[in-house]
Amino acid sequence: MKPIYIATFHQSRFGKLLGMTVPQIVDSAIQGACRQIDADPAALDVGSIGAACNFSLNEQGLLAGLMADTPGLAGKPIEAVENACASGGQAVLSVIQKLQLGMGETGIALGYEKMRDAEGKMDGKLIGKVLGYFSHPGEREGKVFVFPHIFAEVMRDYMAAWNVTERDLAAIPVQEYANAKYNPCAQMNKVQITLDQALAIEGLNRYVVEGLPLKTYDCSQITDGYAALIVATEEGLAKLGVPKSECVEIAGWGQATDPIRKEGRDVLRPAGAYRAMRTAYAMAGAGPEDVNVAEVHDCFSVMGAIGTEVIGKTEPGKGAQYWVEGKAAPDGECAINTSGGLIAKGHPIGATGIAMIGWSALQLQGKAPAEVQVSNPRLAATFNIGGPICASVCTVLR
Amino acid sequence: MKPIYIATFHQSRFGKLLGMTVPQIVDSAIQGACRQIDADPAALDVGSIGAACNFSLNEQGLLAGLMADTPGLAGKPIEAVENACASGGQAVLSVIQKLQLGMGETGIALGYEKMRDAEGKMDGKLIGKVLGYFSHPGEREGKVFVFPHIFAEVMRDYMAAWNVTERDLAAIPVQEYANAKYNPCAQMNKVQITLDQALAIEGLNRYVVEGLPLKTYDCSQITDGYAALIVATEEGLAKLGVPKSECVEIAGWGQATDPIRKEGRDVLRPAGAYRAMRTAYAMAGAGPEDVNVAEVHDCFSVMGAIGTEVIGKTEPGKGAQYWVEGKAAPDGECAINTSGGLIAKGHPIGATGIAMIGWSALQLQGKAPAEVQVSNPRLAATFNIGGPICASVCTVLR
Repeated sequence: MKPIYIATFHQSRFGKLLGMTVPQIVDSAIQGACRQIDADPAALDVGSIGAACNFSLNEQGLLAGLMADTPGLAGKPIEAVENACASGGQAVLSVIQKLQLGMGETGIALGYEKMRDAEGKMDGKLIGKVLGYFSHPGEREGKVFVFPHIFAEVMRDYMAAWNVTERDLAAIPVQEYANAKYNPCAQMNKVQITLDQALAIEGLNRYVVEGLPLKTYDCSQITDGYAALIVATEEGLAKLGVPKSECVEIAGWGQATDPIRKEGRDVLRPAGAYRAMRTAYAMAGAGPEDVNVAEVHDCFSVMGAIGTEVIGKTEPGKGAQYWVEGKAAPDGECAINTSGGLIAKGHPIGATGIAMIGWSALQLQGKAPAEVQVSNPRLAATFNIGGPICASVCTVLR
Repeated sequence: MKPIYIATFHQSRFGKLLGMTVPQIVDSAIQGACRQIDADPAALDVGSIGAACNFSLNEQGLLAGLMADTPGLAGKPIEAVENACASGGQAVLSVIQKLQLGMGETGIALGYEKMRDAEGKMDGKLIGKVLGYFSHPGEREGKVFVFPHIFAEVMRDYMAAWNVTERDLAAIPVQEYANAKYNPCAQMNKVQITLDQALAIEGLNRYVVEGLPLKTYDCSQITDGYAALIVATEEGLAKLGVPKSECVEIAGWGQATDPIRKEGRDVLRPAGAYRAMRTAYAMAGAGPEDVNVAEVHDCFSVMGAIGTEVIGKTEPGKGAQYWVEGKAAPDGECAINTSGGLIAKGHPIGATGIAMIGWSALQLQGKAPAEVQVSNPRLAATFNIGGPICASVCTVLR
């Protein structure tokens, strides 16, 4: 298959997109990405877009048609994909696949989420309800906030299965807030927490579901934001005037979907996630040992641990320990979530998978902020997942 | 690229899926399609699904995960796509593309819509609102029902531009109701209308927007229904035990997205639709003259006319005349919408594009109901479109 390269990555600051309408967000993402490489949107052959709550929170469908509203994109093959919190990663795969099928030489993958209103306020009850749509209807009953509740159970089960403590898992958000400090686009880059603060039940920090270990600091953010990735074949890079030598290659990718129902399967060792990552490694002709940069889908701290396992940096059950020992730090064995992760960078759902790939590419290019730049970046792995540990998109970047 | 074949097509009766939940619909579509060829779902390598109103009407996302709930599909590459009323067609392309990329040898494309409640009742106001999400926010103002209003304007403009009458356009629904009589899965197969009835403002039939020519009988239905297509490479057919000699090939396909904004472009000659159809013909190495079976997207009668033009059976502006002259009838030059079309077969949005391809395949196999079976079927064209004449998916079947 043709090699596919990242021509550029563009993102908004994550947090609040004050007063922006959805059409403005989509157009800004396209124009912003194109401006970075001094390209006209007309130079883009194909496109794909993901935004998981566009119907429920923004009353907007047919996002492909909104993309085609940007001058230069009319009449091109553009589609919208939905894969819950892996919608952004899925949009990137959609573009890669179109290029590999010869439908074009250049393409743009775009993701966004507008979860707050024009003044930046959020309706927590509504957001909780509509995020619940990404679960099996039979597993929503009795849960006020479906996903925090599901992941509070996962956290409990992970701790019990592997003899891991709340303190072990708290090492993940503590490291991530420390990383986010240096990411100018991170939602929480003005907030720092200590391990004691992450564990103490006081102020903002509380148990989200009584009797289960998940605390506020274990959770990712409610975030507005957008991200776009322009990808191209070698021929496409030439057309865009971007030197191949400066570009990161998406050397491997994989996608797999586990059953939406959480019961009856081993969510601590999700089969689809492992399969997607294995596929990506095989395509890249690489393995976990080659990777020292990663972004994993820490929607909740326990997923930071499981993600560390899925990308193959530890055995199942040892993911939290990897963070406790500092191996996931920017100067560790494999720097994970140097962006701040979903917990401290923010989680604008549709944008998340795209931003993971984009940030990892910046790391490989040596363009991450100096304080979190990995000194000798080799390969990068990304792991984006949606739903109740269900929909996985993985990549390996070189 | 590898040839892709239709191993089987399965659909529910269109109309009301009384008491069925969304998980039951998804599972029934998969199991029903597999049963037809005596295959186990485990024999399917990849999948894709479309259902345009799943969030808004069914409070359900992550449909790929619901598919993976069917035993045999867990951990496979499955995705959900959204392209408004072309979501079903997009799901078929998604599976074709995965097979052509070597991600598998067999796949299932599934579409459904559940627009009525468990008792078969519909909330017209809610449905009108959520269908409006597939338009540009700036073009919704002042319209009670966004899409009937937009297409009433298109009908007015089409009539003015090409000197076509309401009577000319009424030939389309009259022929379609006549066809649907013989389709056991058609929603309106118990209803017949004459040309006079289609034109008379009485009973059910009324002008939908005052001052504009669109009448009730020009409109497609609010429909529950599902459809699934199992497609396969040659190797996949062998694996499924389906003889290639009995299968229809999806010989060409194309997809293109026009701007969602209706203003400022020629919606009577939609650039993306023509491009998608041209691409499909080119891929198949065929042209309109080779086609004598077609299913086109008559969400409103004027789109039956424009669809006849897009597939190349007439010049722009002559589409309605084609029906008036009987050329679109089952025994005409090119039998169009022998299924009954969206107007009389029904329009379960996500299922529509899949059912168009499936029904056309039945025609090519000589398996359509005898009264509407084309006597010497050659090639078939399908044209599925979504939004305000925006998102097109076209195929050519052999």
